[in-house]
Amino acid sequence: MNLVLLDPAEVDAQGLAVLRDRRALHIRSVLRSEADDTIRVGVVNGASGTARVEEVTSECVALRCDLAQPPPPRPPASLLLALPRPKVMRRLWAQLAAIGVDRIAIVNAARVERNYFDTHVLAPEFRRALLVEGLQQAEATQLPEVSIHRQLKVFVEDLLDPLFPAASRLVADPGAPGGIRRAIRTGRPERVLLAVGPEGGWTPYEIDLLSRHGFTPVSAGPRKLRSDTACIALLALVHDALSG
Amino acid sequence: MNLVLLDPAEVDAQGLAVLRDRRALHIRSVLRSEADDTIRVGVVNGASGTARVEEVTSECVALRCDLAQPPPPRPPASLLLALPRPKVMRRLWAQLAAIGVDRIAIVNAARVERNYFDTHVLAPEFRRALLVEGLQQAEATQLPEVSIHRQLKVFVEDLLDPLFPAASRLVADPGAPGGIRRAIRTGRPERVLLAVGPEGGWTPYEIDLLSRHGFTPVSAGPRKLRSDTACIALLALVHDALSG
Repeated sequence: MNLVLLDPAEVDAQGLAVLRDRRALHIRSVLRSEADDTIRVGVVNGASGTARVEEVTSECVALRCDLAQPPPPRPPASLLLALPRPKVMRRLWAQLAAIGVDRIAIVNAARVERNYFDTHVLAPEFRRALLVEGLQQAEATQLPEVSIHRQLKVFVEDLLDPLFPAASRLVADPGAPGGIRRAIRTGRPERVLLAVGPEGGWTPYEIDLLSRHGFTPVSAGPRKLRSDTACIALLALVHDALSG
Repeated sequence: MNLVLLDPAEVDAQGLAVLRDRRALHIRSVLRSEADDTIRVGVVNGASGTARVEEVTSECVALRCDLAQPPPPRPPASLLLALPRPKVMRRLWAQLAAIGVDRIAIVNAARVERNYFDTHVLAPEFRRALLVEGLQQAEATQLPEVSIHRQLKVFVEDLLDPLFPAASRLVADPGAPGGIRRAIRTGRPERVLLAVGPEGGWTPYEIDLLSRHGFTPVSAGPRKLRSDTACIALLALVHDALSG
């Protein structure tokens, strides 16, 4: 935890926040902060800055926040992800928040097992805690917006344009001739929506559906990667290409 | 498991291999292969190709292998990694093998907790099973060579040159001015050794030690990433920059 993330409602008008949960324990036991120490803090989807530790007791930690840094723009990359195994999805939340994504749309696909959608790993409270963990690691404050779609065709045909109006669309495909960098440096988009398929790959019908809706196939080498490895590797390439 | 990996000793002169372990179970229960089906196979550090399933019983699976594809060159990237928490290290093995690294040197650093080195996650049998899992996922055969070094200074001064004679040396540092791509496209090395520090970062002494031994600091953006996320993101950028 390199930055302690607070909800807007936790900080009063004088900048005081009193924590009694895992964050208090972390400040006390891992950071080993004492009164008058300074730590990094931020507000979910808001500003960041520092806080002076005012009090540390066995029950709470009181912080006086100075949130001088305005929030940066939303990350330029979003992810369209065919739901992987729950174990893999669980690992991904914090990593996606840490590397930086604006929106995460979890979708169904022919090679996704239907019962994956029943997992508690998708539950709003569960995933939010892991996303916050990733933000705290990366010293970021912008919580990715997550939506879950059980019908790929409906999602692509009806929701893609309203949810991702301005993003250049790329779909990861180990067999594609071109790479991410070339696709991004050619079009010079400001925002990118990256689609990552299920572990068994998209079907030809799905690739066709995505292509007809503006997705360009891009490769990151011939190796077939697990969904979590693929997402991180591909998002790193997207961020790098977008930044110049 | 996109490719079933065999030890050289498991394949006889006629290309016959009889499996009785988890791989047999996987072929039977997940791939649902039957006699006369064809599956992808490879030999550790050797060739790859296909195998005809000759027999499937409740006890074994017999494969007739045709290993027509010679092994590709060793991956051009190697990793020098300050040992992360055992839980993170455990997740990394398969992902590192999947994304492709030649050698992995695990080292100590001031901000690595000493008891991390006692973990079973570093044990040769344990890590080999996870590395093999990653190779099978990525359809690769070349097993990363792993070495473990409890003294960073001794490692850097005495072992770096013999273990990594020809590699260009980069050290990940969120504060560095230049990126991986620029460093690699400027020097145009054939091989790269990437150093990734502990979760709390290298100390100034360690950065100085690495700099004096030819490591160039490179950044992949301002976010502080967990060791596993950082390794995958940075190795993806290294591979991409090396490939053109």
